[in-house]
Amino acid sequence: MRLACSRTACLASIPWMPSRASIVFRAHISPSHAAGLFQTQSLQLGASCSFSEHRTYAAVDATSGKITEPGRGPASAGPPPVVESIDYNPPRGTRDFPPDEMRLRSWLFQQFREVSRLFAFEEVDFPVLESEALFVRKAGEEITQQLYNFEDKGGRRVSLRPELTPSLARLVLQKGKALPLPVKWFAIGQCWRYERMTRGRRREHYQWNMDILGIPGVEAEVELLSAIVTFFKKVGISSNDVGIKISSRKVLQSLLERFEVPPGSFAAVCVVVDKVEKITRKEVEEELLKLGVLKDAADGILNALSVRSLTELEGLLGTESEAVRDLKQLFSLANGYGFADWLVFDASVVRGLAYYTGTVFEGFDKEGKLRAICGGGRYDRLLSTFGGEDTPACGFGFGDAVIVELLKDRGLLPSLQQEIDFIVFPLEEVLRPQAGLVTTKLREAGCVVELILESKKMKWAFKHAERLQAKQLVLLGSSEWERGCVRVKNLSSREEEDISIDELITKANTSKE
Amino acid sequence: MRLACSRTACLASIPWMPSRASIVFRAHISPSHAAGLFQTQSLQLGASCSFSEHRTYAAVDATSGKITEPGRGPASAGPPPVVESIDYNPPRGTRDFPPDEMRLRSWLFQQFREVSRLFAFEEVDFPVLESEALFVRKAGEEITQQLYNFEDKGGRRVSLRPELTPSLARLVLQKGKALPLPVKWFAIGQCWRYERMTRGRRREHYQWNMDILGIPGVEAEVELLSAIVTFFKKVGISSNDVGIKISSRKVLQSLLERFEVPPGSFAAVCVVVDKVEKITRKEVEEELLKLGVLKDAADGILNALSVRSLTELEGLLGTESEAVRDLKQLFSLANGYGFADWLVFDASVVRGLAYYTGTVFEGFDKEGKLRAICGGGRYDRLLSTFGGEDTPACGFGFGDAVIVELLKDRGLLPSLQQEIDFIVFPLEEVLRPQAGLVTTKLREAGCVVELILESKKMKWAFKHAERLQAKQLVLLGSSEWERGCVRVKNLSSREEEDISIDELITKANTSKE
Repeated sequence: MRLACSRTACLASIPWMPSRASIVFRAHISPSHAAGLFQTQSLQLGASCSFSEHRTYAAVDATSGKITEPGRGPASAGPPPVVESIDYNPPRGTRDFPPDEMRLRSWLFQQFREVSRLFAFEEVDFPVLESEALFVRKAGEEITQQLYNFEDKGGRRVSLRPELTPSLARLVLQKGKALPLPVKWFAIGQCWRYERMTRGRRREHYQWNMDILGIPGVEAEVELLSAIVTFFKKVGISSNDVGIKISSRKVLQSLLERFEVPPGSFAAVCVVVDKVEKITRKEVEEELLKLGVLKDAADGILNALSVRSLTELEGLLGTESEAVRDLKQLFSLANGYGFADWLVFDASVVRGLAYYTGTVFEGFDKEGKLRAICGGGRYDRLLSTFGGEDTPACGFGFGDAVIVELLKDRGLLPSLQQEIDFIVFPLEEVLRPQAGLVTTKLREAGCVVELILESKKMKWAFKHAERLQAKQLVLLGSSEWERGCVRVKNLSSREEEDISIDELITKANTSKE
Repeated sequence: MRLACSRTACLASIPWMPSRASIVFRAHISPSHAAGLFQTQSLQLGASCSFSEHRTYAAVDATSGKITEPGRGPASAGPPPVVESIDYNPPRGTRDFPPDEMRLRSWLFQQFREVSRLFAFEEVDFPVLESEALFVRKAGEEITQQLYNFEDKGGRRVSLRPELTPSLARLVLQKGKALPLPVKWFAIGQCWRYERMTRGRRREHYQWNMDILGIPGVEAEVELLSAIVTFFKKVGISSNDVGIKISSRKVLQSLLERFEVPPGSFAAVCVVVDKVEKITRKEVEEELLKLGVLKDAADGILNALSVRSLTELEGLLGTESEAVRDLKQLFSLANGYGFADWLVFDASVVRGLAYYTGTVFEGFDKEGKLRAICGGGRYDRLLSTFGGEDTPACGFGFGDAVIVELLKDRGLLPSLQQEIDFIVFPLEEVLRPQAGLVTTKLREAGCVVELILESKKMKWAFKHAERLQAKQLVLLGSSEWERGCVRVKNLSSREEEDISIDELITKANTSKE
């Protein structure tokens, strides 16, 4: 069974979502490279996202353009001017990252980066805005239908990127022969989509991609799967929580050949078949018919999706089948690496991107509560669609939303707090320059120092230190300073002592070595 | 003297810039929060940016939309179909970040983050796409004239952000009373602009911002300046290389009051005065006249910009002047902190953003070759323009382009290389699963491991290891493996030994502790 309800069904059952709802809205968005694409409201990362577009905080006079504060409009006796509200929320479907959310995002990205580094992948990035042509494909993918595209002021069709892979392919082609293969690159970037009709779904998410170009064999897929497993383990997730379903588009390809479907329809057929749990079987069959797949062939194809073992698949496709051979080798290698317990063969995995040609896979939670966590596959012919030479390639996308839901659900979200070594507080304003000097020296020693920048009471400073969970408080008072000393209070032990500036700096240096 | 030639002058003198030129095109782009905004071609970070928009690599049939490879078009006898080229370069004015450039960017951002952390600032982020209303101001700023704005499919006016400060203000207002002051936030984000007419200038750059909200006194400015100085020192730049010019908009404000200019024109006057080295004095005077500033007043204002000492300023504005008092206190505090040698008072600094109300500053290279490196100031009334309560605030923006030029010029760019601990290479294909296992164990020990994913000759593996500057090569051969061993070759000493897997892992663990 696919692990997500359909988008349309969700929308029907939740016609109105409350503003700042904490409801998790599970829409299965299939065609993404990462299955965890554009989650509506993640439990943590999306906490500041709101569905209401217009809250009236400020008002702009429509004629003059002048902004007036609510309740402070001109005291004229006429009707109130027509006003347009300015919203303090980010644009619909986008997120702010205040400190809490940002710490979590940075932590997550750090895990992505650390795993990629251990695997000797190099980080790359591309513009978030690309030529629309890079993303327009004819296979009927949702990702292409939901492009956040527009015409720039120079009349060029551009789009906020919906995924990273086409940009990667473009950069590889740009580098040409100067780029030694294999290429092992990773990227973490924001991706966008636009839908007209629905409400409340995210229009952006971040996605971690790892891609290998130049390796034709499943060794590349196994390396990528190993990276995904390494990530899961790193954040405390086990193979009891999560699995990765594996199949190959070559399964479908064999069936299409058997039923004499024109090979040019391959990508479009895959995109339709991927919708099998989102639209009715009848609708799928109708769409397949339009692509030249007759009723019998459609039945054969759709029935084959229920195959759940390689033995069964071998029975269906024969021992000479390339799909079977690839998949067997993949499982055998994964066994050697030591992570085969994370993998399951599942012929129903097709993925919704047109360009996959071989292995396809997606990460899923074993409780079946969440959408796909990540997804990927082999795309050996993408580069030639851009006019380049075909180059063996595979990769995956891993979104920032579903994984955070899962970690939260399992109690695995880290407790992240700003770490402050010292709070420096001049008890008298006259000692402010000295406080600045002590602060500078502590920072030069590598310490994180919060300097109190205004005249405050001692009580405030202690409260402030407590709120920030700072380790030590440095107080500058005239009598201590005249002796070349400051008072240092350890905020956990509550012990305090007067020590010289030099001693303080020496201690700070030692603690940071 | 201002340290940049005018944009129009540059354009006139370089009518055609070569594709992939290494010419540094110095346009002074004043209205940015960061003066180093949108550099045309940085020497390093922008190496992959090209000015040519259409290189013909692939072709799309305009009618069918089908992509064809060059030289492989349909063999029809008719005229060649109208084709539109697909470019392997990123869209005009944007950059890819292949591994080299990405390493440099990551290093630079890491310096930004590390300094911000030492100063106990918290990282935040906002959507790169915001409501246009957030950026539209009536003061005639270039930044507003060059918005990368458009209408989304829902008919809403949106814009790729040209700067980060309005989003920060929006988020502060959204949090309202729940947010304890002072707020000390930093952000590193991509900013965009669009110009119709010019060629080859960057349309995006990254900007580091630090902002303090809730502190009315210059203590906040001094903290920010200290952070900038800390950054410069961290990357090896001294006060011989770089200085920071300081002034206050209150200087202009006093003069406007003296000349009885309507206070409502303040922001617009500042924006005009900031153009003084980009357009002729006569043009400035004409623009000022439109704002209600008469010839005598304009003369008085423009002459005051040549003031270069606080004593002279005090002579001009009187001892009771708030501007003088603020600036004196700022320099005195900076002296206490120990970085006064980096600062110079310079009344000509106005900055081009409408919302500054007090202190303004910009970093400059003392050789006078580059545009401003960073810039900032106090903006105590920005929040009320969004309908919120006025909140004391100041901040700076620091672009990613000029600093890289400067570092390169001074030979201070770090040499950044991927660090690889081991290359694992199975000498026989049959040992591939074992190679995977060894690789996994080494990575679990925290080692960076490049696994060779295809059948290659020994010679290739050595060359590959050399190119990657890997530390050790692990060879798996049948005879060693049967004894539970692998051969490990140290690639710098050229020594090699056969050791057991356990020993290898133990050593790896020890080396990473």
